[in-house]
Amino acid sequence: MKALVNAPENVVAEALEGMALAYPELLHVETEPRFLRRSDAPRRGKVALVSGGGSGHEPLHGGFVGSGMLDAACPGEVFTSPTPDQILAAAQAVNGGAGVLLIVKNYTGDVLNFQLAAELLAAADIPTETVLVDDDVAVTDSLYTAGRRGVGATVLIEKICGAAAEAGKSLADVARIGREVNAAARSMGLALTPCTNPQAGQPSFQLGEQEIEFGIGIHGEPGRSRIPLAKADTLTEMLLTPILADLPFRSGDTVLLFVDGLGATPLLELYIVYRAATRIAEQHGLRISRRLVGSYMTSLDMAGVAITLLRMQEDWLGYWDAPVRTPALSWGATPC
Amino acid sequence: MKALVNAPENVVAEALEGMALAYPELLHVETEPRFLRRSDAPRRGKVALVSGGGSGHEPLHGGFVGSGMLDAACPGEVFTSPTPDQILAAAQAVNGGAGVLLIVKNYTGDVLNFQLAAELLAAADIPTETVLVDDDVAVTDSLYTAGRRGVGATVLIEKICGAAAEAGKSLADVARIGREVNAAARSMGLALTPCTNPQAGQPSFQLGEQEIEFGIGIHGEPGRSRIPLAKADTLTEMLLTPILADLPFRSGDTVLLFVDGLGATPLLELYIVYRAATRIAEQHGLRISRRLVGSYMTSLDMAGVAITLLRMQEDWLGYWDAPVRTPALSWGATPC
Repeated sequence: MKALVNAPENVVAEALEGMALAYPELLHVETEPRFLRRSDAPRRGKVALVSGGGSGHEPLHGGFVGSGMLDAACPGEVFTSPTPDQILAAAQAVNGGAGVLLIVKNYTGDVLNFQLAAELLAAADIPTETVLVDDDVAVTDSLYTAGRRGVGATVLIEKICGAAAEAGKSLADVARIGREVNAAARSMGLALTPCTNPQAGQPSFQLGEQEIEFGIGIHGEPGRSRIPLAKADTLTEMLLTPILADLPFRSGDTVLLFVDGLGATPLLELYIVYRAATRIAEQHGLRISRRLVGSYMTSLDMAGVAITLLRMQEDWLGYWDAPVRTPALSWGATPC
Repeated sequence: MKALVNAPENVVAEALEGMALAYPELLHVETEPRFLRRSDAPRRGKVALVSGGGSGHEPLHGGFVGSGMLDAACPGEVFTSPTPDQILAAAQAVNGGAGVLLIVKNYTGDVLNFQLAAELLAAADIPTETVLVDDDVAVTDSLYTAGRRGVGATVLIEKICGAAAEAGKSLADVARIGREVNAAARSMGLALTPCTNPQAGQPSFQLGEQEIEFGIGIHGEPGRSRIPLAKADTLTEMLLTPILADLPFRSGDTVLLFVDGLGATPLLELYIVYRAATRIAEQHGLRISRRLVGSYMTSLDMAGVAITLLRMQEDWLGYWDAPVRTPALSWGATPC
């Protein structure tokens, strides 16, 4: 395995030190237990957003800590859930008196540990709500999941709920919005190459020279099938067809289209997929009102792409457009 | 070769169509001849910034078109210089009457074609200045270059000159600033894997399982040597030592530290390198006042990292911090 690391066991700790050094104005990294928080947290009277999960999906989640998105993120080791004490400490550190929203991707370890943390928070009289993300249409019941896996919708929920919290919405309202976004989002991805966990040293699976994993999970868990590599337009249609059918998305729907690189995918390829996806969405009668193209939720060095489609509600547009300043997603109040 | 493409000959054209669809508010893509321009260009009275080069380095340059950076970018085919007619048409389209600054990386084809375009612009009575970027300390006279290659400093010049132009500086001043930034910047990179040009279908070179190319060029051209893979801290020191010695950077200097992923490098690894680089810089007595960490100038799917160090001048800090809204670099006026 080739990677720019020192000791495999220190990958996450050293990367977090690097993040703290790279973004001194935006975030602080705590080490005992480990979490990242907004440098200006807690924000009095604002609902605090806390997410987390295994590392290896950067910039998710730590790259979304900052004004307009997360108040804290709890990174586990690579592809390993964070522990309840991390989540508890993060939530206590950023709680501004208006309660804490936990945003949890549907993987068994994450669900269990966030649930334990929520019970500890309740015992500490900190009001807590949880949004469980399960937007992946590829498979039901997977290697690490009962039900559907949580993937790209997580980024959209963190942005939209982050803006709603910033706008002063109550914990109940922010949680409701998060659940509504999750319910209106569907995703699916495919891998051209496996990823290699530097703490394991081996590729997560093997693929033939002209083979792809269709419906891939973000830890390299199996998808729906192994299929031959095909043209980008064909593969994009194969991803979008089950996404469109699942919600289902209907002609006339207004959508946000998110094309996500899985880590090693050149931007040239993401734009080719985005082009194909817009055509298919428009043939389906959808109006694309917002979009996101880039590598925002990755699987280390995996080459591949995932597509998320979100049926937008009118009041989410303002939340999407609202200012945000995090390492990975940043824009000002208006185009300057 | 595995890539998300349709036909190799259409990679750039289709990716540009995708970009136009992804950023309708920020930019327009012209096809005959091919260039990207700010959607609100020309800006009356503002110096216009035009850059370009071979495709395959995304987000450079098209991803830096927008307010606060480039007015136009001219993409060639993959790893192929844009033609003079592209550059001429782009400059004419975005010239707002205050002249045009051409930002050119030092590769023979780029230099020649931008020079021809500058002559055509002079004949059309459009005042033009050129900033030639040649910050790579790895080698002198390379596969496509006489003198030093232009690499990471390009991103910094486009940001700093973009802000200076936005602030109303004259063409002579913006060009002077660009040359000063180039003169104060030094870079070097290394590759863990080759890249594969989808229009060629073959890896650009071969590397052993535990071998890296030290001093790599952004088209896969040879660097200084093939060396065994080592720890991230060791490799970071090997990159920084010649960078520090070259300018030379001196104890007490204030610097911008830019750690650039070459395309397929996980963010976890970039943060580990950033951590190492800050330590070495500080041991050298440098004060890091600004930083940039991410994949901003890439070589398709190459795994590896490049480091750029810029000795900052006081008046560049405000230009660096100034608002920017482009696909790849974006922030508002103040942390929100």
